[in-house]
Amino acid sequence: MIVDCAVYEKGSRRPGRLELHEAHEAGRSDDESFVWIGLYEPTAEEFDSVRREFNLHELAVEDAVHAHQRPKLEQYGDSLFVVLKTARYVDPEEVVDFGEIMLFIGQGFVVVVRHGQATELRGVRRAIENRPEMLRCGPGAVLFAIVDQVVDDYVPVIHGVDNDIQEVEAQVFSAGNGNPAERIYKLKREVLEFHRATASLLEPLDRLARRPFDLIHPDMPPYFRDVHDHLIRVNEQVETFRDLLTSILEANLTQVSVRQNEDMRRISAWVAIAAVPTMIAGIYGMNFEHFPELEWSFGYPLVLTVMATVCYALYRAFRGSGWL
Amino acid sequence: MIVDCAVYEKGSRRPGRLELHEAHEAGRSDDESFVWIGLYEPTAEEFDSVRREFNLHELAVEDAVHAHQRPKLEQYGDSLFVVLKTARYVDPEEVVDFGEIMLFIGQGFVVVVRHGQATELRGVRRAIENRPEMLRCGPGAVLFAIVDQVVDDYVPVIHGVDNDIQEVEAQVFSAGNGNPAERIYKLKREVLEFHRATASLLEPLDRLARRPFDLIHPDMPPYFRDVHDHLIRVNEQVETFRDLLTSILEANLTQVSVRQNEDMRRISAWVAIAAVPTMIAGIYGMNFEHFPELEWSFGYPLVLTVMATVCYALYRAFRGSGWL
Amino acid sequence: MIVDCAVYEKGSRRPGRLELHEAHEAGRSDDESFVWIGLYEPTAEEFDSVRREFNLHELAVEDAVHAHQRPKLEQYGDSLFVVLKTARYVDPEEVVDFGEIMLFIGQGFVVVVRHGQATELRGVRRAIENRPEMLRCGPGAVLFAIVDQVVDDYVPVIHGVDNDIQEVEAQVFSAGNGNPAERIYKLKREVLEFHRATASLLEPLDRLARRPFDLIHPDMPPYFRDVHDHLIRVNEQVETFRDLLTSILEANLTQVSVRQNEDMRRISAWVAIAAVPTMIAGIYGMNFEHFPELEWSFGYPLVLTVMATVCYALYRAFRGSGWL
Amino acid sequence: MIVDCAVYEKGSRRPGRLELHEAHEAGRSDDESFVWIGLYEPTAEEFDSVRREFNLHELAVEDAVHAHQRPKLEQYGDSLFVVLKTARYVDPEEVVDFGEIMLFIGQGFVVVVRHGQATELRGVRRAIENRPEMLRCGPGAVLFAIVDQVVDDYVPVIHGVDNDIQEVEAQVFSAGNGNPAERIYKLKREVLEFHRATASLLEPLDRLARRPFDLIHPDMPPYFRDVHDHLIRVNEQVETFRDLLTSILEANLTQVSVRQNEDMRRISAWVAIAAVPTMIAGIYGMNFEHFPELEWSFGYPLVLTVMATVCYALYRAFRGSGWL
Amino acid sequence: MIVDCAVYEKGSRRPGRLELHEAHEAGRSDDESFVWIGLYEPTAEEFDSVRREFNLHELAVEDAVHAHQRPKLEQYGDSLFVVLKTARYVDPEEVVDFGEIMLFIGQGFVVVVRHGQATELRGVRRAIENRPEMLRCGPGAVLFAIVDQVVDDYVPVIHGVDNDIQEVEAQVFSAGNGNPAERIYKLKREVLEFHRATASLLEPLDRLARRPFDLIHPDMPPYFRDVHDHLIRVNEQVETFRDLLTSILEANLTQVSVRQNEDMRRISAWVAIAAVPTMIAGIYGMNFEHFPELEWSFGYPLVLTVMATVCYALYRAFRGSGWL
Repeated sequence: MIVDCAVYEKGSRRPGRLELHEAHEAGRSDDESFVWIGLYEPTAEEFDSVRREFNLHELAVEDAVHAHQRPKLEQYGDSLFVVLKTARYVDPEEVVDFGEIMLFIGQGFVVVVRHGQATELRGVRRAIENRPEMLRCGPGAVLFAIVDQVVDDYVPVIHGVDNDIQEVEAQVFSAGNGNPAERIYKLKREVLEFHRATASLLEPLDRLARRPFDLIHPDMPPYFRDVHDHLIRVNEQVETFRDLLTSILEANLTQVSVRQNEDMRRISAWVAIAAVPTMIAGIYGMNFEHFPELEWSFGYPLVLTVMATVCYALYRAFRGSGWL
Repeated sequence: MIVDCAVYEKGSRRPGRLELHEAHEAGRSDDESFVWIGLYEPTAEEFDSVRREFNLHELAVEDAVHAHQRPKLEQYGDSLFVVLKTARYVDPEEVVDFGEIMLFIGQGFVVVVRHGQATELRGVRRAIENRPEMLRCGPGAVLFAIVDQVVDDYVPVIHGVDNDIQEVEAQVFSAGNGNPAERIYKLKREVLEFHRATASLLEPLDRLARRPFDLIHPDMPPYFRDVHDHLIRVNEQVETFRDLLTSILEANLTQVSVRQNEDMRRISAWVAIAAVPTMIAGIYGMNFEHFPELEWSFGYPLVLTVMATVCYALYRAFRGSGWL
Repeated sequence: MIVDCAVYEKGSRRPGRLELHEAHEAGRSDDESFVWIGLYEPTAEEFDSVRREFNLHELAVEDAVHAHQRPKLEQYGDSLFVVLKTARYVDPEEVVDFGEIMLFIGQGFVVVVRHGQATELRGVRRAIENRPEMLRCGPGAVLFAIVDQVVDDYVPVIHGVDNDIQEVEAQVFSAGNGNPAERIYKLKREVLEFHRATASLLEPLDRLARRPFDLIHPDMPPYFRDVHDHLIRVNEQVETFRDLLTSILEANLTQVSVRQNEDMRRISAWVAIAAVPTMIAGIYGMNFEHFPELEWSFGYPLVLTVMATVCYALYRAFRGSGWL
Repeated sequence: MIVDCAVYEKGSRRPGRLELHEAHEAGRSDDESFVWIGLYEPTAEEFDSVRREFNLHELAVEDAVHAHQRPKLEQYGDSLFVVLKTARYVDPEEVVDFGEIMLFIGQGFVVVVRHGQATELRGVRRAIENRPEMLRCGPGAVLFAIVDQVVDDYVPVIHGVDNDIQEVEAQVFSAGNGNPAERIYKLKREVLEFHRATASLLEPLDRLARRPFDLIHPDMPPYFRDVHDHLIRVNEQVETFRDLLTSILEANLTQVSVRQNEDMRRISAWVAIAAVPTMIAGIYGMNFEHFPELEWSFGYPLVLTVMATVCYALYRAFRGSGWL
Repeated sequence: MIVDCAVYEKGSRRPGRLELHEAHEAGRSDDESFVWIGLYEPTAEEFDSVRREFNLHELAVEDAVHAHQRPKLEQYGDSLFVVLKTARYVDPEEVVDFGEIMLFIGQGFVVVVRHGQATELRGVRRAIENRPEMLRCGPGAVLFAIVDQVVDDYVPVIHGVDNDIQEVEAQVFSAGNGNPAERIYKLKREVLEFHRATASLLEPLDRLARRPFDLIHPDMPPYFRDVHDHLIRVNEQVETFRDLLTSILEANLTQVSVRQNEDMRRISAWVAIAAVPTMIAGIYGMNFEHFPELEWSFGYPLVLTVMATVCYALYRAFRGSGWL
């Protein structure tokens, strides 16, 4: 689906609707113009007309339609192909939902293809249309605006995971009987996958920040450096999560083991308490003919008192040592 | 066994059967021709005649017959020697079955030796014969087509392992009494071996994508870069599997320990319930002469009722705390 | 809040109060002068006037107001932007409290923005004002003095964590029943975060020690090398902490498991001791008509003696093998 | 002990016995000659005469007599000094037995010193004497032949360890009560030591394969590259062993824990079964005067039947749930 | 404390006592002379006179008095500053005791400052005074002699730790009840700290072996390369220790768990044995009026025999399965 298609001249949008077949022409009209086409999950046919219009490389096109790429920056001849991984956190399922954005950047045009639900681009277009001094820098500015948004959208994912880790920590170290091993493991799985997305983007962004590309306006690198820096922060956070989840899985084993022992100690203590009157009763149940206590008139209540006393003393002792 | 032997001129196959001893000559007829010979697990004698025909380096030849190489790309004088590791997933045994493909590439010829069952090459030859514009690029195109197929064939292995990991996860976190430790371990063993195959191929592919070789047509590098990228994805997935399997082995220990404890708690609870009537019965089994309750006519039913009540109360309590 | 604003000429402070709008002018008066402005958690408006006065880059400004940066050193045109992470150890909560210091360094000025409570800068200013030969080196000397203070302030954090690790070690290997798993985990969490701060500062400091910047006086690099060296030491210590905490988490599991077993053995031993008189009493409680011992006049005391003897023997045996 | 001392001219051995003091002279007679001296664990005196004859560097000499070096390749002036670590697997003790081979290579001579039992060199000399075209390449060919043999001799070690790991796996996942923790640990210890030997050799071999040395014939590098490749394979295998042994140590803990629980469940089940008749018997052992069942003539057999039935039912239940 | 102060000319010590204030002059007398001053834990005043005499850099001086540096090699102008970490193993406490040696090397002088007890330098001075051909190389030879001694003194530490690891292994895998978790952990702590000392020295030694310094005689690099190689060996050994101690901590957990289970099985077996006569006795303690066995005259001895037989059979069974 073609979402939007517009020409930008000297930093501002030329009014009116632009047809696809006019796009290439319009973008080439002069040096300070470019066309920005936005597509959402295009079909092979839809994309094919774009491909022909801008003469895109067959390999990049294949990637754009099939999605499931890793973040990368490729240079095909005099055009750039950028793949970004978008992410959003679906809190109820504690799952990171990934999407993709591909950009084809050439002389006078930028084609943006979005797959998946994360990172809405309409807002990005609107925001940058309000910054003509930025938009004047051409397709590189569009690339920056989109990359910036994608990396910004990683932050809620970080917060979501952080929240869940804190919940899991509380669960692990609480007195309750829960065993969040499955939840920890599933979180780790998500974090590993998220890490793959953030770590792979570091190198392309670093190249955009360092190496000058002909297609990128020379004012842009500091901006890419800034996003790169932001991404490093996100990435370090994700790596910390990985370490923490490994530690917490181990701590959980200790806690589960400790709680198990508390259970066993408690029941063992009760069994030990019950064993004493049973033993005493056994003694007074023996059938010896010469058994003086049995004939005492206060024998029975005395024994009952002894039993109760011993049981109570044991109970206090177990209580005192924290077993009950 | 010589599977096929053909001359390609300007991107299309010259009809008719080609004998081995004519091959070298035929490939050198003009600049746009080359010979493509396919062998399957050749004997030393079969290979020896190929070696003499194309004057291959003794070290490469030794590798080709003995197999059990690691993926690599070697340059011997003006010819290239490439080793690829093929893989297929044998699901019933959860085992990755490896094979090997070696390519000898020189001016006007490409010799392909296949060992093992994975990655059938007949389809590759047929597919590329339908793309004359690609085949025109010479032996480098054949190399690309085969590498591409080999890496594509890694994907079903990834899916197979992923499926099994998901099954194992379900097993670990289910309520059942299974202990999939052995299965996890065996999967990890396969993943480690598979990782060796994929990781070692990265460097040769990267060289093909970057460094220009005289034997490789200058249009080919972007294609190799594409396969390289695909391989990175496969490789990252394999590394994630490794991490996941390590975590799941640990999670499994926790789960086994938790289930063990549930077993012990259940039986301990029953023993505790049985201890109470035993104790009470012991008391009323004592032989004191002065024992008022024994003479009460409702003594026996009363005691039975007390026993039943206490046991039921304990049962409810254990039930409530999740022990039974 | 503007904390201080002063001009330094040839290494000494020009007396009198300097208004912000005069600052840029004053710093440029001659080559050996510069302005040093200190701000504490400025509002956007406060900072905006500084920005306009010194014409700072918009990206750096955004960072300065929002804080939550990672340590870095950026060059924007002919000015430097440095972010430092300050840290102090809040011992009662065993938490590392982070702050930030940003420096904007340009020809003739240095703007210092501090966030958070750690690393008071008033003392730094006073100390360097007493070393005119250092201050003569210009803004680079201010940068050095502040970085030096920031890294020095990491040392009490190291000592605090070290203390707590030693306490935790004592707890883990003591005979007591404590389970410091939560404390170990929380410490590890703090150490991981602290490591992120120290490790990220290594690279910027290394650049200051190696690469000559126009804005940094050529006498300064050895000083930065010295701080860099100090930071490496801090960083190595932090990494050792990480390793130690991982080991201690595992050692704790062993210790908890050993202590659990001691508990279970003790109670099992008592149950075993109680089982013996119960069994003997059971035997003499049987109702056989022909039961010679029951008629012996010394039967009852004899049996009691046997019971006591066996129990005592068991008690000694358990004592001897360390179970009680 | 001097094992052998011979001059090789144009690829073939000059007949007759060569005395040590003639050696240097003989090796320098013309460009295509060299002397090859083999020593086995020489005494300091024996080696001293060799040292004087060939004027070897004092540091290299010290290494040669004391052994216990790590694999390395040093260039002293115009001579090369190579240390190789030999290995053989002593299967009964599951121990890797290391030896050392040092080579001093100079213009017209190669001195080979062997320590320890692994990698017999007599066969190497005989084999290369049958390949005059190789031997013609001079001392570099001798170096290649020996390195090749040393790396080939790593393969039986790999196979030996692999076998033992498979045995250990079988032991860990069998139903038996064994605990191979010690064996796993000892294997890991050997693997770590073996890894040190193989990993340290990679860099010297890589240098021989890449950098041209004056003393090494220009035809040799592809051969060294081949050995290097072989060594990488060995080394990867060793690293996989390390990973596997770490995993199996952990899997073993799970298995031991599972088997422990099976033991405890079994005995607990029997105790639970025994508790039931004890409880019932206790009830009918009470001394109530009004106790109707006791007077029933079929009371005793009925109770016995009830006991047997309950016990059998419990037995079946435990059986069914896999506890017995 | 100034330990020694002497001038060396052309490789031999000039006789007579040299005062500090004459030292700088004496070392500069001609190109082949230098002064060697040795200090042991100097006070700030003592060192200050040395500093003034040789005009040392303030940063290096601060390091020399405060100690607690990491191994490093710094170049201040035309002089070198080297920090070495000395180590000795205090076996009774299983602790590595660290000291420091700092060297200031300049044209015609070398100042050596030692802190701590490890690595006595008197012997080093005496030994090198006996090698005039070495001493002729100037201050670089002194540096070599000291570094060589420091690295040699690491070897007894390695042996000490190795011994203790072997003791710990024996303890872990013995049948005894010990739990060396604390000892393993403490050893690991020492090994981590020792590793920091050895690993940080690698880079400075590598630079001495590779890069030519004006102050270091061109004959020295091979000697430094030799020490560097020695240090790599030490360092690899330390890293192996780290890996081994991690594995042994885990193996210990398994062993402790196995021994715990053996304890529990033993006591459970005895409880099971005791449960049988209790149960039988309970049955014959029932008060049924019609109870034929009770009237049999051989009833009591028969029951006792049955009890003994069953107990003995159980005992044999438990014995056979290894529980007792």
